[in-house]
Amino acid sequence: LRWTQTLADEGLGLLSYPEPHGSADPGSFVAAFAMIGHHDLSLLTKFGVQFGLFGGSIARLGSARHHDEYLAAVGSLALPGCFAMTETGHGSNVRDLETVAVYDEATDEFVVTTPTDLARKDYIGNAAVHGRLAVVFTRLVVGDTDHGVHAILVPIRDEDGTVLPGITIEDNSEKGGLNGVDNGRIWFEEVRVPRGALLDRFASVDEHGEYDSDIPNPDRRFFTMIGTLVGGRISVGAAAVSVAKSALTIAVRYAHRRRQFGPARGFESLLIEYPIHRQELIPRLAATYAYHFAFEELIDAYVDPGGDQRRLEAEAAGLKAYATWHALDTIQAAREACGGQGYLAVNRLTAMRADADVFTTYEGDNKVLTQLMAKALLTEFRQQFESMNATGVARYLFHRAASALTEASPVTMSTTDSSQVSSASWQIEQLRWREAHLVESLAQRIKRRIEAGTEPAEAFIEVQTHAATAAAGHVERVTLEAFASAVGRIDDEAARRSLDKLRALHGLSTIQADLGWFQEHGRMSGASSRVIRKTHESLVREVADESLALVNAFAIPEQVLAAPIAASQ
Amino acid sequence: LRWTQTLADEGLGLLSYPEPHGSADPGSFVAAFAMIGHHDLSLLTKFGVQFGLFGGSIARLGSARHHDEYLAAVGSLALPGCFAMTETGHGSNVRDLETVAVYDEATDEFVVTTPTDLARKDYIGNAAVHGRLAVVFTRLVVGDTDHGVHAILVPIRDEDGTVLPGITIEDNSEKGGLNGVDNGRIWFEEVRVPRGALLDRFASVDEHGEYDSDIPNPDRRFFTMIGTLVGGRISVGAAAVSVAKSALTIAVRYAHRRRQFGPARGFESLLIEYPIHRQELIPRLAATYAYHFAFEELIDAYVDPGGDQRRLEAEAAGLKAYATWHALDTIQAAREACGGQGYLAVNRLTAMRADADVFTTYEGDNKVLTQLMAKALLTEFRQQFESMNATGVARYLFHRAASALTEASPVTMSTTDSSQVSSASWQIEQLRWREAHLVESLAQRIKRRIEAGTEPAEAFIEVQTHAATAAAGHVERVTLEAFASAVGRIDDEAARRSLDKLRALHGLSTIQADLGWFQEHGRMSGASSRVIRKTHESLVREVADESLALVNAFAIPEQVLAAPIAASQ
Repeated sequence: LRWTQTLADEGLGLLSYPEPHGSADPGSFVAAFAMIGHHDLSLLTKFGVQFGLFGGSIARLGSARHHDEYLAAVGSLALPGCFAMTETGHGSNVRDLETVAVYDEATDEFVVTTPTDLARKDYIGNAAVHGRLAVVFTRLVVGDTDHGVHAILVPIRDEDGTVLPGITIEDNSEKGGLNGVDNGRIWFEEVRVPRGALLDRFASVDEHGEYDSDIPNPDRRFFTMIGTLVGGRISVGAAAVSVAKSALTIAVRYAHRRRQFGPARGFESLLIEYPIHRQELIPRLAATYAYHFAFEELIDAYVDPGGDQRRLEAEAAGLKAYATWHALDTIQAAREACGGQGYLAVNRLTAMRADADVFTTYEGDNKVLTQLMAKALLTEFRQQFESMNATGVARYLFHRAASALTEASPVTMSTTDSSQVSSASWQIEQLRWREAHLVESLAQRIKRRIEAGTEPAEAFIEVQTHAATAAAGHVERVTLEAFASAVGRIDDEAARRSLDKLRALHGLSTIQADLGWFQEHGRMSGASSRVIRKTHESLVREVADESLALVNAFAIPEQVLAAPIAASQ
Repeated sequence: LRWTQTLADEGLGLLSYPEPHGSADPGSFVAAFAMIGHHDLSLLTKFGVQFGLFGGSIARLGSARHHDEYLAAVGSLALPGCFAMTETGHGSNVRDLETVAVYDEATDEFVVTTPTDLARKDYIGNAAVHGRLAVVFTRLVVGDTDHGVHAILVPIRDEDGTVLPGITIEDNSEKGGLNGVDNGRIWFEEVRVPRGALLDRFASVDEHGEYDSDIPNPDRRFFTMIGTLVGGRISVGAAAVSVAKSALTIAVRYAHRRRQFGPARGFESLLIEYPIHRQELIPRLAATYAYHFAFEELIDAYVDPGGDQRRLEAEAAGLKAYATWHALDTIQAAREACGGQGYLAVNRLTAMRADADVFTTYEGDNKVLTQLMAKALLTEFRQQFESMNATGVARYLFHRAASALTEASPVTMSTTDSSQVSSASWQIEQLRWREAHLVESLAQRIKRRIEAGTEPAEAFIEVQTHAATAAAGHVERVTLEAFASAVGRIDDEAARRSLDKLRALHGLSTIQADLGWFQEHGRMSGASSRVIRKTHESLVREVADESLALVNAFAIPEQVLAAPIAASQ
């Protein structure tokens, strides 16, 4: 809390809020968040809960009245608060949560209740100790009608920190990490709040108990409300990339310093000189750069007021999932690469690992997010078809057939040209082809099931693993493209050449991991598979020589990195 | 320490020591260790350091005199001690460590010294608080001759726990896990111990300063001494399998209990019914059974007095590496499969993860162990050739050619028979073929380099990643074979059928992970690749239905598992 206060005093809490209360600069807010991600992840989460989730939902779901009343106090941390969405029984299924707020016309109030024990709010940051006000996600019942999930402001503690009547709070106790965050559970027992407590940007109730919303479809309304909170996922994903950068900075610097294992009593080589050592670090360094550029693009889309919101949400879901998995995998590789030194708390890798662990299941469970992403891909695929007239469909089918011919052509099939497989255009073509194939076959599998009488929802569940593969294929393609276009924007030739090598390595890592699929689908021959492995190996060697410069380019301040084994000499 | 005392009081500390002091039952010692691995890993490590590493090295490197003097006190924990091998500057390169013991004929003593700061003993369990006596690995210098690394007993604290003169000890402080173990650093400054302190089973010094050993070659002597300590690696690997079992028991039980995410307000399915959920747990369950059986075989070989020691060491190195990586990967999958519940400390998965983390780099860094394994495979490969006469070589080459023909034959290439790809014989044949190919091509790569003038040691370094692949190929083959033979020994038909399905799944997981390689080497067609994926997916579904029984069969006592979300109902 004290550290968060320091950041608030610097004005960082107000970055994303609309004027006049804030700087209306969500891009800078995400940048601040990503920078904190290099250091302490409890602080990061505390910061994100207060200014992002709690304050952000007031900013985005409330109206001017709420902004005027709360945003300054939230952004200065004078009013610590909670984002009370998750329930014990409904971790990833927010639409079906059970907390209920019933409008009482007699008193012009909402009455908020936790109807069952599984409906308690769970894992709520700031709840166990510091929060005074909570944005509570609850069903809204007016008269006989359940209007679905809405957000309501409910005070939970008074100014002295005493829990208010009707509120029960329990500490989540020790977690695997992030123990600087006071997560807790909240129960509501007929807690009354005035009608104005409803965050009413998308729906309101008037004094006669008339419910009104510009979005009549309850599902669309719900998803619109939830969609405005996309910044959370983007921020967590961007912070995950920061953690990966920190871990790699530590491990790569150590590998350039630590000597090990030479012939008895003779020379001992630097760790980075061992192929088996750099094999673990260098491809992950390339991937981290790739995610860096992918998040740059995602954040640009986020701050673009004219952007496609549905698309943004899908990309954020997919990138958050794969970037957080990548971060965990990278921290662990870095930890092992530093041996016992990496296991000492003072060198920070184990805390990073323990804290970032939960990134994979909070702000949306990663496995669930892959399905969201896949659904968006299917929607786009369907729209593509629906918008086509007969000529368009014919042209599409012709294109598919032509591309099938290309697959079979000996030129592509048997490329053994290492500069071809390293080129951005060839790599992107492979990933585009794979993505298109995966999405199309996903659509076909679902279609077959539905035609055979399976319910659509059930059909989608049956193809979940294929859907996740399609989502991964999309994210990998988008990420490689982002990397390639970033390289194209670099003026300095030496820097461009160096980063292009890194992009080539990343593209080959991606393709290499799926060589079974590419060969199975007749897209690559055994000979090209071999040349890919070989080229990959020599790129790892080449990039290793530049790796110290590549991690130093992350420019993580020493006092933020704070790991003795990685201190500059 | 208190918990370790309880186990010592039960007689578990003495299981492996020779009679009359112990039960001469190393198999039971490993079994006890594996059982403790289901519960607290700090206790496991404390137990292993005291009775395994410290006591075990007295038992295996000392003579009857040392046994009589120490083993009873070590096994009862009356004498807590350390295994002081690792030095800060020499983590994985024990042969080159720098601590030195010089024989002083005048006083008939050894003088033990830490010559440089990098030569301090580091990460020594029991050192920071409890240890009183240490087995110190040190160069032995007699007269002008450095005889290489030997083990000497050096007292480090008196009976009151006061650190002795000449000894400096520093706590390693907080680690990423295992904080129940008091790891520390030790420096020696001209510490004098009597000549009899040398553990002299393999080498001795007489009162005239005459050094004597039955193994004249210093390298062979060193590796023989180190080889007797193979039990440590076997124990850690077996315990890693225990941890994987615990993690899966928790996650699979939770998946059979937790409902999630059905269509709005309608039914909610059990987590285990979601393909994307079981995909993460079920193949890892199959792999855990596979490692279970592989370690059964390894432990049998370990307790067999007539066994091949070199082979045992190689198998232990390889299996320890892959089993510990498997454990980490499995704990993490289990943690994510339990969502936020899995992140609560009370449910134990995060502590398992944090504690088991270091399994991958202690008792031999895993990456280094893969290289040890590969070197053993190369030695075997060379011996195979050397022992052949001309007829043998001709027969071998004929066999290779015949097997190449089989590869190319349409029958194997295009098998789309799901029962064939599920069969033990077909799966094992694939893994044997791959292993043979990998080892042979590894040998060829090294040969080519040496013929081109590269030093052998350097040549081996250049092919490290290929060597690791060969080691993995070997371990995967051995593990699958162990699984298949265990299934063959089961009498009960229903149990055999169920486990054979699990074996089939594991074999397909292994092959599926390397479909790129199999296709690249002309061993499988795209069509067989497809049938493998499809069969794998349906086996995951079938095994999921039996998965609760399969984890309950691990029979981990409730009070040992101790995770509320996994409690039997």
